[in-house]
Amino acid sequence: MTIASVLRESDSAASFDLADVSAARRARVDLRLRKLLPPADAAPLPLIGAVRDICLRPGKRVRPLLAMLSSAHFGGDELAALDFGCALELIHTASLVLDDLPCMDDAIMRRGKLTLHRRFGEDTAVLAAVALLNHAYGVIAGDAMVEIETRLALVALLSETVGFRGLVAGQFRDLRDPEALRDEQTLTSLNDQKTGVLFAAAMVGGAMIAGADQAAQMRARLFANRLGLAFQLWDDLQDFVSTSEAIGKDVRKDDDRVTFVTLWGEARTRATIAETIEEALASFGDPNCPLALYVLNLFHYAGYGG
Amino acid sequence: MTIASVLRESDSAASFDLADVSAARRARVDLRLRKLLPPADAAPLPLIGAVRDICLRPGKRVRPLLAMLSSAHFGGDELAALDFGCALELIHTASLVLDDLPCMDDAIMRRGKLTLHRRFGEDTAVLAAVALLNHAYGVIAGDAMVEIETRLALVALLSETVGFRGLVAGQFRDLRDPEALRDEQTLTSLNDQKTGVLFAAAMVGGAMIAGADQAAQMRARLFANRLGLAFQLWDDLQDFVSTSEAIGKDVRKDDDRVTFVTLWGEARTRATIAETIEEALASFGDPNCPLALYVLNLFHYAGYGG
Repeated sequence: MTIASVLRESDSAASFDLADVSAARRARVDLRLRKLLPPADAAPLPLIGAVRDICLRPGKRVRPLLAMLSSAHFGGDELAALDFGCALELIHTASLVLDDLPCMDDAIMRRGKLTLHRRFGEDTAVLAAVALLNHAYGVIAGDAMVEIETRLALVALLSETVGFRGLVAGQFRDLRDPEALRDEQTLTSLNDQKTGVLFAAAMVGGAMIAGADQAAQMRARLFANRLGLAFQLWDDLQDFVSTSEAIGKDVRKDDDRVTFVTLWGEARTRATIAETIEEALASFGDPNCPLALYVLNLFHYAGYGG
Repeated sequence: MTIASVLRESDSAASFDLADVSAARRARVDLRLRKLLPPADAAPLPLIGAVRDICLRPGKRVRPLLAMLSSAHFGGDELAALDFGCALELIHTASLVLDDLPCMDDAIMRRGKLTLHRRFGEDTAVLAAVALLNHAYGVIAGDAMVEIETRLALVALLSETVGFRGLVAGQFRDLRDPEALRDEQTLTSLNDQKTGVLFAAAMVGGAMIAGADQAAQMRARLFANRLGLAFQLWDDLQDFVSTSEAIGKDVRKDDDRVTFVTLWGEARTRATIAETIEEALASFGDPNCPLALYVLNLFHYAGYGG
């Protein structure tokens, strides 16, 4: 079974069974997230309630799974990257809460329910996001499964990932850069800052936890870069073709925006997703390794082509 | 010259000259902050501009100075705590930007100019605050003056300080706890979460950088606790007696709120500030050590009794 055939056969789920590659791992991440958050009866109750609510809504947990699979791929312990992966999920969740705010995307739905500010108030949403980002650093600092030097390197990696050249810059540019100037090159760099950087942190961090050398970390980064692009293309496509009920968040929010779908049309976007995944997987050699299977599964599970 | 006499003689500045105890240190912190932030011509320009604007406005730099003086007090190098102190200032600044937001205190003035969201927009203010908090962790991770184990301990300390039991919880409670329930005990715990925790992080972190043992760290924490209370009382008092021009931020914002000034009146609040500082300093032995002189200077410089 080739990658291309899997991607073509996206409607025939019965022809291969990849679901269990990631379901058990997602369950483990969910359990660990629950444990890493303050208990439901901790004060101040409404803030903790909001934080737990948004974090524990069902999610794909892509970043934690990538971190764990990366660690295993580079010869490390998969579970050694569990807490780091959860820290990434906390940061990802914080970024969703912030992006949804009235002063940003002003979104209504997220992960199948009302956005956090609609449900708990804007002040609570802002404080919950800040607490989540901050908590991610505490989780890494306290991660006894990882060497102290590596933990510190992970803190540095995350700060780069989120900060002035990462997620924050990406979100700012997405809000403020004029639509008229969005060509392929600008969109690629924007997508990289909005999505690619956190995928890269997952892959590179996992490799670091496994003790992989710089060359391997660079391979991990290139893989993440391709995967991030494919994922963002798929996200744009979903926004274009799907319904809010199906994907649990606002759709058609890109109607006034330039995306790869508006630049290229649906067919070319689909073709590019497939090519980009092929490129990513080709760099990893064995198309049957758990990481490759997960990536195939992810795009199938996520409804690629459906 | 006793502490009490200094506090009584607050109008006769000529009778003692403490100003230079902290002026040079403040200048050093300002220079270092400027260097730790992205350069003014870095992209995305408006975001970096907002971040530099709010961080580089004149401030008292209390937390950096406490960290540096704490390190020196416990036998360490004062400058070894400079970057940690700057990280605290970044976090403090982020907390001011967030507290000022329309969905929180909806403030107009901060550090002598318009609040960040009034000047640059709400989206920019939120992203600037998040970037500042996040950058603080990067600064600590990259601080070559501090041992790797200590850096990691500082990350853990900061995450505790900001998070679910620290600044974020304090701000949430301040916004949401009913005024009717604010008695001395509640206000004390609230002030501790809003102000005391970051003073404690400065003192304890400084002690950790100096290699001080647990007992010394506990003394540092108790000192910070007293100082934080005095500082918050003074802040409440300023809100009550001062003008926006004089202190560079909104005043009378507590008019509908219960503070120690409304519970106790002005005279008792002033007396308690003096007592609390005496208690703090008494725990440190020598009333002429740089840390003691700085605290006296701070309350004089800040216009205590003026």
